[in-house]
Amino acid sequence: MMAFVVYIGCNTTLAAAAAALCAYIAPAAAGSGIPEVKAYLNGIDAHSILAPSTLLVKIFGSVLGVSAGFVLGKEGPMVHTGACVASFLGQGGSRKYGLTWNWIRYFKNDLDRRDLITCGAAAGVAAAFRAPVGGVLFALEEVTSWWRSVLLWRTFSTTAVVVMVLRGLISYCRGGHCGLFGKGGLIMFDLSSRQAAYTAKDLAAVMLLGILGGLLGALFNFFVDRILRVYSLLNEKGARSKIILTATISVITSCCTFGLPWLTSCTPCPPELAGKCPTIGRSGNFKNFQCPAGHYNALASLFFNTNDDAIRNLFSAGTDREFGAATLLTFFVTVYALGVLTYGVAVPSGLFIPVILAGASFGRLTGALLGSISGLDTGLFALLDAASFLGGTMRMTVSVCVILLELTNDLHLLPLIMLVLLIAKTVADCFNRGVYEQMVRMKGLPYLEVHAEPCMRSLVAGDVVSGPLITLSSVERVGTVVETLRQTGHNGFPVIEEPPLAAAPELCGLVLRSHLLVLLQGRTFTRGRAKAGAAEVFRKLAPFDFAKAGSGKGLKVEDLDLSEEEMDMFVDLHPITNRSPYTVVENMSLAKAAVLFRGLALRHMCVVSMTQRRPPVVGILTRHDFMPQYIRGLYPNTIPR
Amino acid sequence: MMAFVVYIGCNTTLAAAAAALCAYIAPAAAGSGIPEVKAYLNGIDAHSILAPSTLLVKIFGSVLGVSAGFVLGKEGPMVHTGACVASFLGQGGSRKYGLTWNWIRYFKNDLDRRDLITCGAAAGVAAAFRAPVGGVLFALEEVTSWWRSVLLWRTFSTTAVVVMVLRGLISYCRGGHCGLFGKGGLIMFDLSSRQAAYTAKDLAAVMLLGILGGLLGALFNFFVDRILRVYSLLNEKGARSKIILTATISVITSCCTFGLPWLTSCTPCPPELAGKCPTIGRSGNFKNFQCPAGHYNALASLFFNTNDDAIRNLFSAGTDREFGAATLLTFFVTVYALGVLTYGVAVPSGLFIPVILAGASFGRLTGALLGSISGLDTGLFALLDAASFLGGTMRMTVSVCVILLELTNDLHLLPLIMLVLLIAKTVADCFNRGVYEQMVRMKGLPYLEVHAEPCMRSLVAGDVVSGPLITLSSVERVGTVVETLRQTGHNGFPVIEEPPLAAAPELCGLVLRSHLLVLLQGRTFTRGRAKAGAAEVFRKLAPFDFAKAGSGKGLKVEDLDLSEEEMDMFVDLHPITNRSPYTVVENMSLAKAAVLFRGLALRHMCVVSMTQRRPPVVGILTRHDFMPQYIRGLYPNTIPR
Repeated sequence: MMAFVVYIGCNTTLAAAAAALCAYIAPAAAGSGIPEVKAYLNGIDAHSILAPSTLLVKIFGSVLGVSAGFVLGKEGPMVHTGACVASFLGQGGSRKYGLTWNWIRYFKNDLDRRDLITCGAAAGVAAAFRAPVGGVLFALEEVTSWWRSVLLWRTFSTTAVVVMVLRGLISYCRGGHCGLFGKGGLIMFDLSSRQAAYTAKDLAAVMLLGILGGLLGALFNFFVDRILRVYSLLNEKGARSKIILTATISVITSCCTFGLPWLTSCTPCPPELAGKCPTIGRSGNFKNFQCPAGHYNALASLFFNTNDDAIRNLFSAGTDREFGAATLLTFFVTVYALGVLTYGVAVPSGLFIPVILAGASFGRLTGALLGSISGLDTGLFALLDAASFLGGTMRMTVSVCVILLELTNDLHLLPLIMLVLLIAKTVADCFNRGVYEQMVRMKGLPYLEVHAEPCMRSLVAGDVVSGPLITLSSVERVGTVVETLRQTGHNGFPVIEEPPLAAAPELCGLVLRSHLLVLLQGRTFTRGRAKAGAAEVFRKLAPFDFAKAGSGKGLKVEDLDLSEEEMDMFVDLHPITNRSPYTVVENMSLAKAAVLFRGLALRHMCVVSMTQRRPPVVGILTRHDFMPQYIRGLYPNTIPR
Repeated sequence: MMAFVVYIGCNTTLAAAAAALCAYIAPAAAGSGIPEVKAYLNGIDAHSILAPSTLLVKIFGSVLGVSAGFVLGKEGPMVHTGACVASFLGQGGSRKYGLTWNWIRYFKNDLDRRDLITCGAAAGVAAAFRAPVGGVLFALEEVTSWWRSVLLWRTFSTTAVVVMVLRGLISYCRGGHCGLFGKGGLIMFDLSSRQAAYTAKDLAAVMLLGILGGLLGALFNFFVDRILRVYSLLNEKGARSKIILTATISVITSCCTFGLPWLTSCTPCPPELAGKCPTIGRSGNFKNFQCPAGHYNALASLFFNTNDDAIRNLFSAGTDREFGAATLLTFFVTVYALGVLTYGVAVPSGLFIPVILAGASFGRLTGALLGSISGLDTGLFALLDAASFLGGTMRMTVSVCVILLELTNDLHLLPLIMLVLLIAKTVADCFNRGVYEQMVRMKGLPYLEVHAEPCMRSLVAGDVVSGPLITLSSVERVGTVVETLRQTGHNGFPVIEEPPLAAAPELCGLVLRSHLLVLLQGRTFTRGRAKAGAAEVFRKLAPFDFAKAGSGKGLKVEDLDLSEEEMDMFVDLHPITNRSPYTVVENMSLAKAAVLFRGLALRHMCVVSMTQRRPPVVGILTRHDFMPQYIRGLYPNTIPR
């Protein structure tokens, strides 16, 4: 009883500390982080996602959360951590503290910064699973929205470095002076000794596993979605309610993990393992718990172990008798339910470990039940069902396959893993979306999907550009520019060459708010409406001044301090006008425009008119114009929901 | 002597047969086929690349070529074969013979057919190396130009099926009744028993391997390029000269493989292998050749073996004494030279096997020389140098890495393979391009590169649209349409809505030549200039009639048989006009337009005017407008070569 109080106390304290970090310092650090990174790489430039504070909270919160005994993984947070580190580097250090390097200037643009962050995410996966190729594929399959062939090579180099560093650390730690880290080599669950010879009957069993995994995975996603909706209501009430929620879940978790083993009967140790069973030390397979000497508690052996060791136990061959069906069923139900309950509390929490644990225990259970039909090892069933659960929840194929191979080093199993993944993904796709996509949607982030929504097919680009179009003249009065920037929140403005500079109104290009602000601060103004020339502007400002600022460091309109006299002068926008804006004609199908917008990773797209009668630009499309909610708001009646 | 004559006679006959097949039936079947598939998937819709005749010649030519003892691989041809089979399926069977299925209609468009062919290429690699994940990655990294996330999942399913079928065949053939195929499991060179523990010294040796592999790989590419230029002069002279060239190379190959072992001294068999050495049977490691009993000829053991067995021998651990330094050097030089000489003869020939053989022998040689410095096994050196040669010639990273892992099943080597590949690719990239890119360029195919050429940066889209723009009215006289189709070779025409249908000229969209021909054949004409309406057209023609025809089956202008009276009637182009053409403004940077054009996989792009003074469309950009040669022809003086 005393032990229980200490156990529950420690866990709840750790959990509350993690929740406090998340709630007060960086709310963006809660959860897996993979949906956020996915959203960032889709072009959603939300500051908090990759801020340094998020990074710190993610690291420490994850450590606290794992220590608190929650059913959660460290893999998702590691992906987020990797992305945060990359983003921190990509901001080019800090000008304030003189920590800038010249080479780091190359990342002062969206494209390269995005590549860097993709590499960071790949490095996170590579480090979490010690799976370099899996990391590359995870970044490509799940995280990025835009794939370029150089990206493959860049992520590959990153993970090569990661694996070299990991290998160095492991060989340094082999002596055991880094705690648990030193244990095990580069391959976490080396099962390569097993020979897999399978028959048609086994294939049928594997297919059944795939179907069950797909169903349970889809169900998991459904529950996670519902729970997150409930939690978000609670979390909205403030930081305190977040901490209380986390502490409650922690208490429930502790009760389950500590209480359930009491209900299990003790098993006598197998005689051939006299020295090793039961283990009292820190990590080992046969936990004594409440049992008399020479016996072990199977459920406690699963719960009171590191997650890695629990998974290794479940995957191992030849341990059929160690865990009975009742133990496995209890463990599966507990992990599945706690996995659903835990995700969404204000703690950095990954989904990989809960899903793998649930899948492995369910697989062993199925294996034990199907023992008469299939001759496959139950450990193999555990591995395959872990694959099928991963496929059912996350809907990844190649990357999960390679990650599992890199975890277990057993290439003979490749055909079976591929089969089970394909079936699980196909089955689960009939019910709902992958868990990460679902979370991106639920967070309300303006994520651009690969495929256009059906409602866009019946609309054209001109239909959704609404409100008066705000354009600037190619040589504009300073006051007008400042006023425009103050009164609108737009980030891009079309520039029109007007008489007397042109015979008829002519599209000159597009200027960005951030460039306008830098130009205005440079104060290259003229008295009359005349071209100043680029040479004049670049005498005062270096091209690098226009580079993308680090997070939250950009200029604001309020920072400008212009005199009345300056406000009446003119500024030449030609030097900063992007003369090659991407355009679509006004009766371009909205669905096609959406695919184009996403495919080119744009932020603004000009809609040009098709006829000579009207001015050259009709409007500007931004990300928000492609959001289904917005379109449904504009055309509520004509579009089926 | 008699044996030599028989040997050389057999080889030359087989070689000549293969060359005759290629020269007379399908010249497109010569060579590796990977550059051609790459070009097709870049949007170059050349009929012969994936024609059924190419498929047949590729299969039989490859069998003959490998049997003829050439230093060439079957892997490249298998990729091409896979793509051809996919293309054949994707054409929807044959309407002529009633072999059509409804579901196959889905492939009657460029996008899906391209996906199918990518899957075919992936299946080819998966079958050739028994490497399903490697196949997926190869298709993504090397073959496709456009990557979509569904493609990952599709190629993965394909290779999963491939590996299941392969496994079934292997287990069926285990009894040995399929010749050499039954030998070996799904993993071709299983080396998993080896433990790799490496030190800093070993890493230095591995880096050296990477640098040497990069240099020799780049040199290989250089030689292949030169040799191909020489051969193409000979091959242009006709089919007979192709056959003579092939026969000559065959004689040289036979002389080398048969002659060189005579120069080698015999090695006594190691005493512990009394029963196995020398082998007289079909496949084995210790070939007797001219040696007395109890001795073997090391060089003959490499030459007179299947390529697979030769590679397995070189990769194996613990055979340090089997092959001496002189043997390895001779073998390396011969294979390297013959590999260069053989590629480019009119025989289906892959590059993987020669490169792996050269790399493996060079690696063992280096390993033997560095034996005092590095403690790594020479078999491991062979594997790593094979990786470095592959990286140096083909410049692939992730896919080569995964293919090698799937070939050898040794995940412990992953960090070393990654390192060596990265170094080799980086070194080789300093000198020239990858061998496949080089060949695409040399064949003069209008391949669109990922990055725009530097000469495009100083030009705008309007600069390269040349010649008079041919437009059609939205309701056009039949005679005019026919005349336009006869007199120009264009495949797309802008449609302009003109008075009286519109107040001012207005861009209506784009029509395709193939759609115009189908519409004209449908004969939905009106007497006066009036809209006929889509309903009228689609009463006569099903939407499927407009689907992309199979290879070479499309309509031609000459096939139309219209009377004089019909030629004076009008045809409404609205139903077949693509009202959402992709457009760029005329002063869009040409480099950006090129990236857009390639990124969206377009065939036509309208250039619209920026001002109200001019008609809405200025010109049409096609693939050829982005070719550097064309641009240099237009602006020879202003653009540096």
